[in-house]
Amino acid sequence: MAVYTDVSPAELGTFLSGYDIGTLTSFHGIAEGVENSNFLVQTTTGSYILTLYEKRVKTGDLPFFIGLMQHLAARGLSCPQPVAARSGAMLAQIADRPAAMVTFLPGVSVRRPTAQHCAELGHGLAQLHLAGADFPMRRANALSVAGWRPLFEAAGSQADDVAPGLAATIAEELGRLEASWPADLPSGVIHADLFPDNAFFLDDRLSGIIDFYFACTDFLAYDVAVCLNAWCFEADGAYNVTKGRALLAGYEALRPLSPAEKAALPRLARGAALRFLLTRLVDWLNVPEGALVRPKDPLEYLRKLRFHRAVDSAQDYGLVA
Amino acid sequence: MAVYTDVSPAELGTFLSGYDIGTLTSFHGIAEGVENSNFLVQTTTGSYILTLYEKRVKTGDLPFFIGLMQHLAARGLSCPQPVAARSGAMLAQIADRPAAMVTFLPGVSVRRPTAQHCAELGHGLAQLHLAGADFPMRRANALSVAGWRPLFEAAGSQADDVAPGLAATIAEELGRLEASWPADLPSGVIHADLFPDNAFFLDDRLSGIIDFYFACTDFLAYDVAVCLNAWCFEADGAYNVTKGRALLAGYEALRPLSPAEKAALPRLARGAALRFLLTRLVDWLNVPEGALVRPKDPLEYLRKLRFHRAVDSAQDYGLVA
Repeated sequence: MAVYTDVSPAELGTFLSGYDIGTLTSFHGIAEGVENSNFLVQTTTGSYILTLYEKRVKTGDLPFFIGLMQHLAARGLSCPQPVAARSGAMLAQIADRPAAMVTFLPGVSVRRPTAQHCAELGHGLAQLHLAGADFPMRRANALSVAGWRPLFEAAGSQADDVAPGLAATIAEELGRLEASWPADLPSGVIHADLFPDNAFFLDDRLSGIIDFYFACTDFLAYDVAVCLNAWCFEADGAYNVTKGRALLAGYEALRPLSPAEKAALPRLARGAALRFLLTRLVDWLNVPEGALVRPKDPLEYLRKLRFHRAVDSAQDYGLVA
Repeated sequence: MAVYTDVSPAELGTFLSGYDIGTLTSFHGIAEGVENSNFLVQTTTGSYILTLYEKRVKTGDLPFFIGLMQHLAARGLSCPQPVAARSGAMLAQIADRPAAMVTFLPGVSVRRPTAQHCAELGHGLAQLHLAGADFPMRRANALSVAGWRPLFEAAGSQADDVAPGLAATIAEELGRLEASWPADLPSGVIHADLFPDNAFFLDDRLSGIIDFYFACTDFLAYDVAVCLNAWCFEADGAYNVTKGRALLAGYEALRPLSPAEKAALPRLARGAALRFLLTRLVDWLNVPEGALVRPKDPLEYLRKLRFHRAVDSAQDYGLVA
């Protein structure tokens, strides 16, 4: 995690003169975000995050991300709210990069979520899904089932260098999921990357959801499956059904899952595990020289995938029938 | 610039329970400080910087640095003020590293100082020197004249790979300075690294001085010479005498230089240039693989050294006779 682009105080001063947010009082690059450069900007009116979009984010996707945060914040979701420049524009340019200023969210992410955190998260996820229901823009999920085979091909036979037999396991799983992936579940805006480092808490209450740069249009229950993977496994690889139950109950308190979504949950969870297994595998095999970021262990998601393969029904995740 | 050590929110929570500074509301690693890891910590009582001392800082020096900030802040200098734990201790331990919590200073550093900034800086430097006059601890300057030859030997003949003839230039300059370095100028606490990134401004007024981790006991006028080098040269290598005059006048308004200090200023400036030339040269020749920090150009200081060698007297720096 790093700041990739250097912004001079003078550049920032010029940039801020296009906004109605007061005078600059403090400015620090923050070591967060693998994809973008982030600065904590304090002015006489409050705290803001200035994000510079680096080349891994497609410029054409920015109106979706910015529009979505604006839409969700307007509907009461606690997420970064884009700040318009005096011109009305939400996107600007600094240091030759597209950039956006958003409000700063208080809160602290948790490394080891408790069942209480999972309940809060489930509730927040449902709130996000409901708030996004009337968002008019669409963005395909490039990392859903159709995107997995190209990732697998990018890793190729090198997968077996990471773990013997991994290529065969992935090939088999991929074939099954391609053949059985649901086609008609309730869809809408999903976060698609709601890991614990993208959720803030204050006094164990969810205070905000950040990092919408994987958000897209897909099955809402797939987002639930991503969260079960990200929040409800212990460090030793065991699924914690108490946390799963809390997350699902928190979610269903606001948005009950349909029978079709419940039936699909084990498959969606396998798909979500495969998705993170594949992207982590490709990152693992392609660490650039002098990399700042240690890639995450792909095998964590192989273990999760194995768990999901043994699951019979959504009840195994803690869903109350 | 990076955060070298990972601190989990849970670790930080435990750590903060030893302090009387309220409840954690936000926590971000900041991409500043080449030597240490810094976190911006916000609580219900305000903003703080938590510094984790990495191995390049000697633990035995920490009481000097912490004691000095406390001393200077108590005498009205705007610098980070160490916050005592409930136990009374100013130094604590987190993530297996010594750590200190200090108050957060508002302000923004300037990349291209104006004469007005230089005047403010000179005034602030004199304030630092006066406030430090009764600080009881001492710390030798390991990077003064006695430390330069070992640095030169570490670079050795590789110096000529950076610029042809560099080794001979350094050898000659080093010999002269060793033979003529002043022995009896007014001494006291100096910052020793007061570059523009270690000074904060608000509305062009100096709002704070940070990063005391090179502070030591040495000639006060040497600190002035370091600042002339760091603040008064233009990007094209030219010395800006207007800025020099402003810096010196700002300094002398609070602490007039003695005749001996004035006479020594050109030599001190040459020494300061050589010191940064040497440390940058060694860093340049020893970039660790996968380094996060691009080393600074040593030749910038060769050009400054050449300027100082042509100087006749302190008047050439803008000192009013």
